[in-house]
Amino acid sequence: MARLIADEGLGLDVVSLGELHTALSAGFPPEHIEMNGNAKSQAEIESAVKSGVGRIIVDHPDELATIERYAGEAGVIQRVMIRVAPGVDAHTHKYIATGSTDSKFGVPADSREGSMLTEAIRTAAALPHVDMTGLHFHVGSQLFDTDDYTKSIAVIVRLMKELNDSLGFVTHELNMGGGFGAVINPAVPAMKSEYYTDAMMTALADGCRTYNIEIPRAILEPGRWIISESGITLYTVENVRTLPEVTYVAVDGGMADNPRVALYQAEYNAVKVDDVNGEIWHPSNGGKVSIVGKCCESGDILIDDAEIQKVSAGDIIALYNTGAYTFSMSSNYNCLMRPAVVFVEDGEARVVAERQTLDDIIRGQPV
Amino acid sequence: MARLIADEGLGLDVVSLGELHTALSAGFPPEHIEMNGNAKSQAEIESAVKSGVGRIIVDHPDELATIERYAGEAGVIQRVMIRVAPGVDAHTHKYIATGSTDSKFGVPADSREGSMLTEAIRTAAALPHVDMTGLHFHVGSQLFDTDDYTKSIAVIVRLMKELNDSLGFVTHELNMGGGFGAVINPAVPAMKSEYYTDAMMTALADGCRTYNIEIPRAILEPGRWIISESGITLYTVENVRTLPEVTYVAVDGGMADNPRVALYQAEYNAVKVDDVNGEIWHPSNGGKVSIVGKCCESGDILIDDAEIQKVSAGDIIALYNTGAYTFSMSSNYNCLMRPAVVFVEDGEARVVAERQTLDDIIRGQPV
Repeated sequence: MARLIADEGLGLDVVSLGELHTALSAGFPPEHIEMNGNAKSQAEIESAVKSGVGRIIVDHPDELATIERYAGEAGVIQRVMIRVAPGVDAHTHKYIATGSTDSKFGVPADSREGSMLTEAIRTAAALPHVDMTGLHFHVGSQLFDTDDYTKSIAVIVRLMKELNDSLGFVTHELNMGGGFGAVINPAVPAMKSEYYTDAMMTALADGCRTYNIEIPRAILEPGRWIISESGITLYTVENVRTLPEVTYVAVDGGMADNPRVALYQAEYNAVKVDDVNGEIWHPSNGGKVSIVGKCCESGDILIDDAEIQKVSAGDIIALYNTGAYTFSMSSNYNCLMRPAVVFVEDGEARVVAERQTLDDIIRGQPV
Repeated sequence: MARLIADEGLGLDVVSLGELHTALSAGFPPEHIEMNGNAKSQAEIESAVKSGVGRIIVDHPDELATIERYAGEAGVIQRVMIRVAPGVDAHTHKYIATGSTDSKFGVPADSREGSMLTEAIRTAAALPHVDMTGLHFHVGSQLFDTDDYTKSIAVIVRLMKELNDSLGFVTHELNMGGGFGAVINPAVPAMKSEYYTDAMMTALADGCRTYNIEIPRAILEPGRWIISESGITLYTVENVRTLPEVTYVAVDGGMADNPRVALYQAEYNAVKVDDVNGEIWHPSNGGKVSIVGKCCESGDILIDDAEIQKVSAGDIIALYNTGAYTFSMSSNYNCLMRPAVVFVEDGEARVVAERQTLDDIIRGQPV
């Protein structure tokens, strides 16, 4: 849920009561939080407004009446933006492509009279406790070129111009989402932020100049790109099983702590921690090495065809680039206890999420 | 983890410390528990032996030495079975097909001198605190015909004969796993147990008679088939969004409480709870109706093309057949709080897992 607001520093995007509560409990300033989400509950909107979040990203026009009610009760003017779907099919896994016009997110980028978008802008303009500052889009995740961004920006800038002409609506702020590709293979570093932002800001500024409209304040949400590389997951090898076509390295975790391989065929790299520069293992029978988890299904694979040093039971292996969407997506499948999360900086280690215990597994389950 | 032992009543299959702890905390008799799992830790084996579980299903031969050590310490003789992969590719999603010879589970059904299986049986025979009572196999999940079972049984019976001849090993018990297909569409009821068991027991008995070997005591694990139909998940509709090709019904849950659609393209049926027999909704624009969750990714779909009554914000809908692999696989993705689980019988309701609170979301996370 991390995001950057360049001239204001770090901001945070939350999509639920739980994420809002987590952020506020950690002391994060509410004015730097935005509430997003395609299915906000009344309670989520109420809590966002009354906590003083900086912006609510309106995903469905019906949210506006709810925001008005709670902002009115609180006696505040709530800043909002509206999420639009630019109609660009991102080059990524369909589960994380979010910008097409038939997306579950946002309203189509349609400036015609009577469209969901123009109706929402008109509605917002008439609400005394709502201030719509601009537009939001998010085209997808794990994007490794800039085409999807520049195409989307072309659509959005044209939309900004049309909304300005027809409704007098000025897009003061434009949230261009995230999706910068995070590192998969440590031998291939991630692109620098400039790779994306230079292309995006050029497309935005050029488009605005062409249409003679104000260049909006730009907001970005490159959360995974920031955090993914910072995470490493450590596993202990429980056993090694050599079969004719594959050697299985079974570890003490798996899809419960990292469901991304089963969900998206996400790719990871691993090393044996006390032999990181050792020779890559080629089992004598010629088969591949698969690193698998301990859940009771065949889909619980961490790396299908791993390049790793020779390991045996008791060894510790590290999966790189597990900083994003692992802890946050973890489950207690097979009643596995969630591992600890430890922050390490300058040689100092600090537990930020404690290892779960057996008590956690049965908490709230009266016999 | 449910299983039936016909002549002993209900038994339980566990694969982790957490599942064992849950079962014992609920007062389940340990002698009716079996410990399974492809990556058992030393601690899991120790705990299983010292709790007095009825059987340990040896998935990897290395477990035998560990079982012997802890059984010796405890002064008990631990009954074990060994899991074999019959080499049958089940007709189901590859994630839940578990019986092929290159499965991460078990040892290949190979009776040749020097194979993993014969070595394991020899090893076990020499261990004073280990009693290997027979074999275990599990060919896959969600099987709707009996072919995969009868083919596997043919392989296993032949194996039993060969092991008897070469090693004098008698398969007193045969655990034939589970995988009976659970209901997907309530209009199409699940097959009765006899559909599977008649074919399986006939194949087993005929095979044993042909080879003139003892018919083993049969054990089955039809957990999902027992429990799936008993579960219904209730969701509140947060909003409805009509787009040109699809109408999205966004609800207050999704892949956090039920990741099976995203993982396996599992199919569900839903109804509007106060209009279960009402006319099926066909939006006026001709598009399909998709029921989607509130997590921040496009893959968070519950039913892609739903046949359901017309709903609007605030309505409650029910998904049928969610009794298996939902609570057990649930996560706190997007910090969503796990819903309550309520047992209902004869008009009485009892909470068996409390709804999580905001405190649960940040538990164990020191600021």
